[in-house]
Amino acid sequence: MEPKENGNQPGRVIEGPTNPMVTPLLNDLYQFTMAYAYWKAGKQNERSVFDLYFRKNPFGGEYTVFAGLEECVKFLANFKLTHQEIDYVRDSLPGSEEAFCDYLKGLDCSDVEVYAIPEGSVVFPKVPLMRVEGPVGVVQLLETPFLNLVNFASLVATNAARHRFVAGKSKSLLEFGARRAQGPDGAISASKYCYLGGFDATSNVAAGKLFGIPLRGTHSHAFVSSFMSTDEIVDKVLQSADGETTCDDFISLVQTWLTKIQYSPSLSGFFSETNQSELAAFISYALAFPKAFLALVDTYDVMKSGIPNFCAVALALNDLGYKALGIRLDSGDLAYLSTEARNFFCAVERELKVPGFGKMIVTASNDLNEETIDALNKQGHEVDAFGIGTYLVTCYAQAALGCVFKLVEINNQPRIKLSEDVTKVSIPCKKRSYRLYGKEGYPLVDIMTGENEPPPKVGERLLCRHPFNESKRAYVVPQRVEELLKCYWRGSADEAREELPPLKEIRDRCIKQLENMRPDHMRRLNPTPYKVSVSAKLYDFIHFLWLNEAPVGELQ
Amino acid sequence: MEPKENGNQPGRVIEGPTNPMVTPLLNDLYQFTMAYAYWKAGKQNERSVFDLYFRKNPFGGEYTVFAGLEECVKFLANFKLTHQEIDYVRDSLPGSEEAFCDYLKGLDCSDVEVYAIPEGSVVFPKVPLMRVEGPVGVVQLLETPFLNLVNFASLVATNAARHRFVAGKSKSLLEFGARRAQGPDGAISASKYCYLGGFDATSNVAAGKLFGIPLRGTHSHAFVSSFMSTDEIVDKVLQSADGETTCDDFISLVQTWLTKIQYSPSLSGFFSETNQSELAAFISYALAFPKAFLALVDTYDVMKSGIPNFCAVALALNDLGYKALGIRLDSGDLAYLSTEARNFFCAVERELKVPGFGKMIVTASNDLNEETIDALNKQGHEVDAFGIGTYLVTCYAQAALGCVFKLVEINNQPRIKLSEDVTKVSIPCKKRSYRLYGKEGYPLVDIMTGENEPPPKVGERLLCRHPFNESKRAYVVPQRVEELLKCYWRGSADEAREELPPLKEIRDRCIKQLENMRPDHMRRLNPTPYKVSVSAKLYDFIHFLWLNEAPVGELQ
Repeated sequence: MEPKENGNQPGRVIEGPTNPMVTPLLNDLYQFTMAYAYWKAGKQNERSVFDLYFRKNPFGGEYTVFAGLEECVKFLANFKLTHQEIDYVRDSLPGSEEAFCDYLKGLDCSDVEVYAIPEGSVVFPKVPLMRVEGPVGVVQLLETPFLNLVNFASLVATNAARHRFVAGKSKSLLEFGARRAQGPDGAISASKYCYLGGFDATSNVAAGKLFGIPLRGTHSHAFVSSFMSTDEIVDKVLQSADGETTCDDFISLVQTWLTKIQYSPSLSGFFSETNQSELAAFISYALAFPKAFLALVDTYDVMKSGIPNFCAVALALNDLGYKALGIRLDSGDLAYLSTEARNFFCAVERELKVPGFGKMIVTASNDLNEETIDALNKQGHEVDAFGIGTYLVTCYAQAALGCVFKLVEINNQPRIKLSEDVTKVSIPCKKRSYRLYGKEGYPLVDIMTGENEPPPKVGERLLCRHPFNESKRAYVVPQRVEELLKCYWRGSADEAREELPPLKEIRDRCIKQLENMRPDHMRRLNPTPYKVSVSAKLYDFIHFLWLNEAPVGELQ
Repeated sequence: MEPKENGNQPGRVIEGPTNPMVTPLLNDLYQFTMAYAYWKAGKQNERSVFDLYFRKNPFGGEYTVFAGLEECVKFLANFKLTHQEIDYVRDSLPGSEEAFCDYLKGLDCSDVEVYAIPEGSVVFPKVPLMRVEGPVGVVQLLETPFLNLVNFASLVATNAARHRFVAGKSKSLLEFGARRAQGPDGAISASKYCYLGGFDATSNVAAGKLFGIPLRGTHSHAFVSSFMSTDEIVDKVLQSADGETTCDDFISLVQTWLTKIQYSPSLSGFFSETNQSELAAFISYALAFPKAFLALVDTYDVMKSGIPNFCAVALALNDLGYKALGIRLDSGDLAYLSTEARNFFCAVERELKVPGFGKMIVTASNDLNEETIDALNKQGHEVDAFGIGTYLVTCYAQAALGCVFKLVEINNQPRIKLSEDVTKVSIPCKKRSYRLYGKEGYPLVDIMTGENEPPPKVGERLLCRHPFNESKRAYVVPQRVEELLKCYWRGSADEAREELPPLKEIRDRCIKQLENMRPDHMRRLNPTPYKVSVSAKLYDFIHFLWLNEAPVGELQ
């Protein structure tokens, strides 16, 4: 969609969604059949309030990172059906009247309001991530696109945050998932939202360009096996880093170092003859990127071939004033191999007197996930950077987050969705939500209240009730009160109070909020659930409405 | 990307990929660093052959549906980097030479050849789905986009085929996943490839429009709870189906039927008072879509409210010559509720003398997957149509397929990728593949041969060897021989022998091939692996090359 100026005044222009396929037609047909039925019943402009929320944290954890809001606002700001789209919709609705097309033609979000928790926040079940208000006909058409844009974004951002938690702050985390992601923008959104959730870089060039995410990548096994021997290398000349000298035969320099390593007391015995196609590939790669030499060392045999070949090239580069970056391991026992590699690098540093050589970056990248990183930590390893693909970007451990979009009020009448499963009962009414902080600065509890209740006050004792469990309640004296829902759209972006911050800022918020959680909510094993509550007044109202709506059973 | 005419003659124009985000930048950075290193080494035009294949069938099964080929060809046909993209790539490669930009400027696929198994075919591990030949610099840049376009497509098509298998041919299968899919084109591709894999329809309007997939959808719980009572309905008039009479008060007609049902001998006792907001919603929906009335009956209570309300409306429609379609169940015990609903419909047919009323469509749609449909089958149920979302479109049971893209030959030299894990060793050489059929018409075995070996002949005995297990081999006398790899691109689409068929044709191929598999390969529990083999000559060559490349260990 083309960006659209909103309202009549020259206001903030909001671009369309990143993926141009995100149009009002990215929708379930039933949103259009309902729009038609509302319109037929003359109800299409009744003021409705919908909550977007999820019911359960993913990955067996007790927290979720909210993401996808910016894309929702971009969608909203440019919501408009084209003639062609309207014709297609009409043809898809059996027996629909022509006048409905006029209604669709005029449809936009100039009468919609969106309140949301800021993107990148840590969020919890049942608390609305977004509250969407407006004419029921158009708000209904936002359900599927909003859910689509929020569900995967929040899921994969949470997955990234969990990987960061287990890897620790000091490690580099690289997202390598483009090839295994669920389709093209499965890849691009995964790159974006993994960065948001705390990753450092991506291999995905398109995502780097679109979102300014740092890029990482060197070479693959195919590159190594595309070489036969060093005889293939025609141009063997390499200038020194300072440009002052020139090495006319870089290959010979490398081979000299390979021999030195081989006959050095504590390094000998590791290997006899290294693979020549691998050596040729490393030399070629170093000639192309002398300032950024990082080699994949497991094509043939890590310790017998890859590491010695890498060291020989790195030492030759060192002679010319270049500092090699390190290695990547893509198979085998990563705990063992990373430790052996580190020992080898340290031995080279000692034996061959090359200061800093022991600090080579060791990158690991073979089907990693939370569990394998945790296992590596327990075994001990020397990995500095993890390249994570499949399990991260497809959210293999749990491939979907179940955000829902529920009607909570229409025409000022609160509505409740009942279910025999209590966890599926919706919390009615247009609500406000607050996060209450304790003495130690940690968030203690989120509380939802009716729209017109007075907000919780710092230092004032307040009863927080579990929305459905009568016996679960607690008094809280908040040291800080934060209202969660902010206005991101009010007929236009100009009327809204919140700007859409850049990705880097959203990422900073996310990292800061995660760090500020009480540790027992965050741990991988048996984390403590964070408390989500309602005010005493809202509690009473929910249960009044519930009794009113539920049919009385008859035992027979 | 804009469609591009290929070659100099006015040839077949192939449109760009469905998702405009699929550009050459949808790539791992290392493909560009390698392209640069190949170029620096003067190797960029060396003729290379890469195989795209997977190693293991997904979902614990023994078959896979190949999908995504059309998108790969569309990508290939329009492969061209823009100036802006080239600038970004250059800036991402530290210290790269300006002349490399000229190389990238001239880069296209006019020297690439693609051979592939037809899309929609049933395929097996290790057998190349695609063989891509061409200058190593450009073919390397196809790896990530091709894998991205094939991996999820094939995974979700296979998932759809498995759902079809368990549901049986007679059921309608509807894909309802847009809201839970992994991003916008996770949704759109899922809709496309689920249809390819044997689904009947989707709820996704964008996918319907793009690919001509039939659409389905009615209304949600929100629609039901947006009504308070029948008093809200202003326009109660409904014309009969033949246009000859007009019912001035459709609400009264419905209420009359509701009373009749309530006091009908074998239907009484089921319910006392139905929910009025539900009744109002059903009436409104029927007034909007009298020819296509299908109601969601579980907002309050299926048997006490939803079914009686539905029947009253359906009977009123029947009076006016309309035939209601049926109901949807979205919660609870689907085996029990579908059976009870069917009994109720049959009782209405008998008691109230409405022929055909018992045949109402029962649609079920609550978190369904292979296992739940299998369980429903075992319990017995009356569901006619399954609406499947989350588990289908996110491939929840296994969220990724591990297709790889391996160099098998360069400059006419066969290459092998070794690994300590035998299943990860690649099969070297530019190869041909054949499917051999037995007497009963079933496929017996796939065999790969060297490019220049004579093809297997009908009626001639042939030794088929497991590629890595010496002792596994079998003689086969094929009754039919099918060469698997066809040419889809040879510098241009014009030089290729195969056209890209329409989706419907691909779907037909898929359904036909699945039906033609020997049943023991297809069963859900302990299916028999389909045999994949190499010729005796290729076997010998693989093992010669393997010994040659593998380092000899030294026990210490």
